[in-house]
Amino acid sequence: MSKGPVTRYKVEVQDGAKTSRREDVVVTEEPLELRLEWPGRPPEALVVTMRTPGSDFELAAGFCLAEGFAVRPDAIRTVAYCTDSVLTREQQFNTVTVTFDGPPDREPPQRYGVTSAACGVCGQQSLDELAEREYDPVDPVEAPLDLVLRLPDLLRDAQPTFGRTGGLHAAGLFTTDGRKVVVKEDVGRHNAVDKVVGWTVLNQHSRKGLVLALSGRAGYELVQKSVAAGIGMIVAVGAPSSLAVDLARKFGITLAGFTRGERCVIYSAPERILR
Amino acid sequence: MSKGPVTRYKVEVQDGAKTSRREDVVVTEEPLELRLEWPGRPPEALVVTMRTPGSDFELAAGFCLAEGFAVRPDAIRTVAYCTDSVLTREQQFNTVTVTFDGPPDREPPQRYGVTSAACGVCGQQSLDELAEREYDPVDPVEAPLDLVLRLPDLLRDAQPTFGRTGGLHAAGLFTTDGRKVVVKEDVGRHNAVDKVVGWTVLNQHSRKGLVLALSGRAGYELVQKSVAAGIGMIVAVGAPSSLAVDLARKFGITLAGFTRGERCVIYSAPERILR
Repeated sequence: MSKGPVTRYKVEVQDGAKTSRREDVVVTEEPLELRLEWPGRPPEALVVTMRTPGSDFELAAGFCLAEGFAVRPDAIRTVAYCTDSVLTREQQFNTVTVTFDGPPDREPPQRYGVTSAACGVCGQQSLDELAEREYDPVDPVEAPLDLVLRLPDLLRDAQPTFGRTGGLHAAGLFTTDGRKVVVKEDVGRHNAVDKVVGWTVLNQHSRKGLVLALSGRAGYELVQKSVAAGIGMIVAVGAPSSLAVDLARKFGITLAGFTRGERCVIYSAPERILR
Repeated sequence: MSKGPVTRYKVEVQDGAKTSRREDVVVTEEPLELRLEWPGRPPEALVVTMRTPGSDFELAAGFCLAEGFAVRPDAIRTVAYCTDSVLTREQQFNTVTVTFDGPPDREPPQRYGVTSAACGVCGQQSLDELAEREYDPVDPVEAPLDLVLRLPDLLRDAQPTFGRTGGLHAAGLFTTDGRKVVVKEDVGRHNAVDKVVGWTVLNQHSRKGLVLALSGRAGYELVQKSVAAGIGMIVAVGAPSSLAVDLARKFGITLAGFTRGERCVIYSAPERILR
């Protein structure tokens, strides 16, 4: 079986002068090898990402959208665990094959190698290539300030594992009246975003009118994934980076950071937060 | 000139019903292209990493140690910004060339592509390759509990930029009697570790008897970098992942997490924290 989202370890807890031994719950980090296949080509390994097991098919689909391989809604035919008999049972659940109906919407670059749980832009051969990619305009979603300020709580309420491990990022898509569409967790923040976007791909759910909520910081790669998914508003609990702000401004994405209590800082397209 | 560690933006701050416009300070995230060169080979681009400008040569040297290219202390001859005249001035400060005296200690794989600020294991072509790499034993450093519990404060006291942006990770090397050897910050936690390790490489400073302090979580890639650098103890403020615990146990690294106030959780080799 696939490993669960948490792993148990015997640990020592030191509290002042007192040492106790107990079982502790740690967020699971496991490699996932992604293979792409289309007619006329056998499955070929593209990337290994460190991720928390669970929603692996959504992760694969979201990654393919972000990287431009599956831009058309029906580009992906199937997503499946590998049943290659040379793999151990555990390896089978760490290998996912995405099969396309025809050639993917963008030719995959040479094999990416291994990316960490925190890596989100290994798909690009160079920065120039990223800048050259063409994207559809993002959704000019408008949301009331009240919703923006409530999103961190709504996201946390929908996050089952974090409280047990302290080691997980969450990403969620919400409607502008506060309804949860999908929330996913992962040890890597970019994986969490791939999982929620991939969920919309596999469920053919529209991303129009949705806001992306992030439990942590907003770096460049998270904004890039939002651009690729056409999502027009990002609300983060943590800080953005300069490249994240630059990219959000370039593509007209509303980007709020430090969203805590009654306060947030709006770095880009503030006019779409209705006050 | 190279960009600084922070970038200024005009933002809107929303506090309850009150909107104010002011200048905000955001952590700078910029691409750094790393090129390797040795006799008989022209400089060749290996990887682009998203990093916070500053200590770029240390970052390059630390990356080369972690990836196994520069294991011998004198493997690196020079580290320099690129003066390629086809590059703009800004691009020159985003391109660093590491020159080796001879062939590197490990043959670099094909070009890695772009890695994000949070990616630390793009250097591996496959997980198998990582497992197959050979490392010297880590330093069996012992440290008193009192020092372990003080490290988060010592690290924060040495971190100049975080308070201004809320968006930076720090890594630091300390002696077991609490003396700071080196502390570096970066938008990517793996870059911060590369910078402190790279500082020891460029300054020919021994890593024996030192403890690595981390301001955030401890993922797989940070433990891998510690293994490559021979560092035997990691004290993190945040949570570890399962692969981080597994790797620390495999190599006998003492790994403490959730180090806050009088409390910490010890996941690996607890006997070397002296109580």
